[in-house]
Amino acid sequence: MPSYTAPTKDMQFVLHDVLNISASGIPGYDELDRDFTAAVLEEAGKLSSEVLHPLNVVGDTEGCRLENGVVYTPSGFKDAFEQMKDGGWPGLDMPEDFGGQALPYLMSTAVGEMFSASNQAFTMYQGLTHGAASAILAHGSDAQKQTYLPNMVSCKWTGTMNLTEPHCGTDLGLMRTKAEPQADGSYKITGQKIFISAGDHDMAENIVHLVLAKIVGGPEGIKGVSLFIVPKVMVNDDGSLGERNAVSVGKIEEKMGIHGNSTCVMNYDGATGFLLGQEHKGMRAMFTMMNEARLGVGMQGLAQAEAAYQNAVIYAKDRLQGRDVTGVKNPDGPADPLIVHPDIRRSLMDQKSFTEGARAFILWGATLIDQAHRAEDKDADGLISLLTPVIKGFLTDQGYDMTVQAQQVYGGHGYIEEWGMSQYTRDARIAMIYEGANGVQALDLVGRKLATDGGKHVMAFFDLVKSFCKESAGADEAYDRDFIEPLKTASKDLQAAGMYFMQNGMKNPNNALAGSYDFMHMFGHVCLGLMWARMAKAARAALDGGTSDPDFYSAKLTTGRYYMARRLPATALHLARIQSGADPVMSLDAELF
Amino acid sequence: MPSYTAPTKDMQFVLHDVLNISASGIPGYDELDRDFTAAVLEEAGKLSSEVLHPLNVVGDTEGCRLENGVVYTPSGFKDAFEQMKDGGWPGLDMPEDFGGQALPYLMSTAVGEMFSASNQAFTMYQGLTHGAASAILAHGSDAQKQTYLPNMVSCKWTGTMNLTEPHCGTDLGLMRTKAEPQADGSYKITGQKIFISAGDHDMAENIVHLVLAKIVGGPEGIKGVSLFIVPKVMVNDDGSLGERNAVSVGKIEEKMGIHGNSTCVMNYDGATGFLLGQEHKGMRAMFTMMNEARLGVGMQGLAQAEAAYQNAVIYAKDRLQGRDVTGVKNPDGPADPLIVHPDIRRSLMDQKSFTEGARAFILWGATLIDQAHRAEDKDADGLISLLTPVIKGFLTDQGYDMTVQAQQVYGGHGYIEEWGMSQYTRDARIAMIYEGANGVQALDLVGRKLATDGGKHVMAFFDLVKSFCKESAGADEAYDRDFIEPLKTASKDLQAAGMYFMQNGMKNPNNALAGSYDFMHMFGHVCLGLMWARMAKAARAALDGGTSDPDFYSAKLTTGRYYMARRLPATALHLARIQSGADPVMSLDAELF
Repeated sequence: MPSYTAPTKDMQFVLHDVLNISASGIPGYDELDRDFTAAVLEEAGKLSSEVLHPLNVVGDTEGCRLENGVVYTPSGFKDAFEQMKDGGWPGLDMPEDFGGQALPYLMSTAVGEMFSASNQAFTMYQGLTHGAASAILAHGSDAQKQTYLPNMVSCKWTGTMNLTEPHCGTDLGLMRTKAEPQADGSYKITGQKIFISAGDHDMAENIVHLVLAKIVGGPEGIKGVSLFIVPKVMVNDDGSLGERNAVSVGKIEEKMGIHGNSTCVMNYDGATGFLLGQEHKGMRAMFTMMNEARLGVGMQGLAQAEAAYQNAVIYAKDRLQGRDVTGVKNPDGPADPLIVHPDIRRSLMDQKSFTEGARAFILWGATLIDQAHRAEDKDADGLISLLTPVIKGFLTDQGYDMTVQAQQVYGGHGYIEEWGMSQYTRDARIAMIYEGANGVQALDLVGRKLATDGGKHVMAFFDLVKSFCKESAGADEAYDRDFIEPLKTASKDLQAAGMYFMQNGMKNPNNALAGSYDFMHMFGHVCLGLMWARMAKAARAALDGGTSDPDFYSAKLTTGRYYMARRLPATALHLARIQSGADPVMSLDAELF
Repeated sequence: MPSYTAPTKDMQFVLHDVLNISASGIPGYDELDRDFTAAVLEEAGKLSSEVLHPLNVVGDTEGCRLENGVVYTPSGFKDAFEQMKDGGWPGLDMPEDFGGQALPYLMSTAVGEMFSASNQAFTMYQGLTHGAASAILAHGSDAQKQTYLPNMVSCKWTGTMNLTEPHCGTDLGLMRTKAEPQADGSYKITGQKIFISAGDHDMAENIVHLVLAKIVGGPEGIKGVSLFIVPKVMVNDDGSLGERNAVSVGKIEEKMGIHGNSTCVMNYDGATGFLLGQEHKGMRAMFTMMNEARLGVGMQGLAQAEAAYQNAVIYAKDRLQGRDVTGVKNPDGPADPLIVHPDIRRSLMDQKSFTEGARAFILWGATLIDQAHRAEDKDADGLISLLTPVIKGFLTDQGYDMTVQAQQVYGGHGYIEEWGMSQYTRDARIAMIYEGANGVQALDLVGRKLATDGGKHVMAFFDLVKSFCKESAGADEAYDRDFIEPLKTASKDLQAAGMYFMQNGMKNPNNALAGSYDFMHMFGHVCLGLMWARMAKAARAALDGGTSDPDFYSAKLTTGRYYMARRLPATALHLARIQSGADPVMSLDAELF
């Protein structure tokens, strides 16, 4: 069975050495000193490795089952969920008024990585609840907040998000689920929703479904979509639970992975629903929390890669196979460990340099969200809106690739389920798809975000890279050569791609859209390059300052150099692909595929 | 459920328009005219799409089961296997003396792609038999050939290959299975073998296990390994079946995919075995057919990618979602089909340009094998030995990536098992691992094959590219620009990488080995670039000649241009990674991972 160790030390490095959070001036961050964050991370790490992780394989093997309309979660999930609730983790960043702890989003992101890495399927139950509660918090009436939030913040009740229907996913304007107004102000909701994560289960007393539907007689298409609260069990005026609502589980989907989460077909048969937010503004309400939700999915890409990487390292050190070509390393054994072989190291360095870079990127992104929300900083909001599709698309694609690489280190043992490496690959696969498939992220980035506010935010990103290079260069020749110069080169590639879109996207938008996926990836590489340059700078400072842990900081420099030398040059390839324009992509007649 | 259409038209194009096989002078190819190959391919295609393909999902869903020591295959497999045998397909390229049809390896490769694409797990039963029969053919005594081959060529009996043990895979010198010589000249084989594909099942009267083991008292390590024939049921002198041998199935492994194939733990408890070939020369005997076996696995990468691609195209044309940004394409429908969107096309073009290029590469490789064997051509043998790890490693990695891309086209529907796209990804994953994990292929390429015969074969490859460019350039400006120039650039990158290895690998072999994986991939790209340049030349000739099917040939040119513009530039990235040398890969202490 795989193991999992919470990477709290690396998180502390990012939070304090790199992001210097307690001195950042972001509202609520002043209390986030090293001791405080260490205490939170250690506690969450313990829950992750001791409680959630051992259930990861159980969830994969047993899956969920539907019996007489009731969904049962895998053995042990219910107990673990109680422990999760007892620890107050689901409400970590929720308002104190509703029972939350009001910590910054940054902390729930760091903690979330560990929960996700140790058990992605399990963590989704509270993840969806968090999303639904956030929407009620942002758009609900006071009465709705009072009715639902205290129980959702504690996860006594869980939540779901109901968007997709059999014939529509990305294009929600095609939706058919309808809402008929009733005399008492409620609505009757009728229709079928699919792919509903945590759609039903046996771990909560009630489930609060947020459902997109079209009010009968309203505008056509996406402009006629509204959002509704549809509780599984009706809530009486005194807060007690009443009758079952007319919502039921059609079936549980058989999936490639995340078997421990019940992905349901949900049938609404004239179920009672309550409008959340304004009529016909359902999309806006649903997507208020989109940046957080997508950053959260990007984090899952990192999380699965991290868990898989840890196990690949253990196996590479343990498994004896072949000899080091430069000289025997394990003379007393029958062979040397896998880790002596250059191609195994190449794979492990790919993984390590990705996960550490991605962690810094995610946590930096979380600080931008806190700055945007807590300080109402429009620049931070613009920047994180720009980076969100990059975080989601790039980190889940790369995270998946890293789970495949980790699995590969195991050879044939990676393919059989016994060792657990296949599960990381299968579980990581979903993150490239849900919360907007990665192609849609690329479209969002290039078709929308680049041009937002006249391109102000992408210019701000380039300025940020430029300023960083300017203020960091000149002190250390090796650092300049290994970090600053590659970052400049990669950033120039990204600018050249943006320029290409500007010059050629006007006459034919397909010149931009045909390169959108490459742009998303090159943007991701530049962000990780920036993160590595920042981490290397922090590591240098620690080493210069006579740290008591020189190994840790030296390893940062070594790992960063790998990323800059071996991963970052991908920007040139993406640029070449982008500059080949729309023609190679679009010129084949559809009939000839 | 997915569908599958045999790509016979494209195969005919490669065989005749591109490779011009019937005029190639390769022994046995003169009878391979268009009509003959069409008849064979159509018949195999029919069996694939009508019989094997419908059982693909069945095999995945049911899997194999072990009951009281007996392995049962999924519903329908047994009947299908009878049809396969009735058609004489397992013996297509086997000698007539043993009941085969003695067709070139080329034909069994083309046919094999269709079998593998329609049902990989099923096809492995005969694939392993073919491998075992080939080893007996090459190394068996006349008596052994007479005893086993007629029934193996017909697949009345099937075969297996037993190499891996729990603690050793790549490094077979660590093997523990022992062979004790008996007075009658036989051996008692004792040990456990794992990952034995088609290890046991209910479709054959007998199973002929080829087992690697160490003769007691022989040399240490890999030099003491011998190969044995261990029949499941003993064969009497008159050819009738006798007693059960002391070999049994320990368990069936739970795997990520290829569930329809029984991957067994095999226990040999003093089983009677017969030496195949010479004492202590087991590795040589086992690997005689290595080029073919590895080319066959490379073909599986292509096959799964082709099947997945076909379904991605169907879905992209069928699924309505969003509108073409350049203008509505389906005004009578609620939305346009997915295929109007540039990023969906980018993905489909990645897939299409890969599968068609890979098919040409595989079939060209098969002609080299025929030339090497049938004409005893040492140059052809050297060239295909060089290309074998490229075919295996590059095509299975890329093939897997393409199944992931095809799955992605389906969005959420790609993640649930109902649509069958997850299976292609899960089934394709194994090809990167078995028959030598792809990292081992890269090691074989850079650590061994490049330097074979003083580098003669890699020089021959470069000469071949050069000659092709020289004789093909100058007739058509657009062709030169779109195909010849990119091919030259990519080939130069590959040469520069080889040069880097020569100059730096001497002082430290890790400078070469740390770049081996990149070299394998850049070599693969150059090969596919060469294939596309050849295919484009053939397509141009057909168009100039006034073909009656201009759409087909125009599509070839368009698809080829995509490969050259969008895929081939990857060589520059691989070169940059290689030229960064061993230092970024090797300098982190093993303890610091």
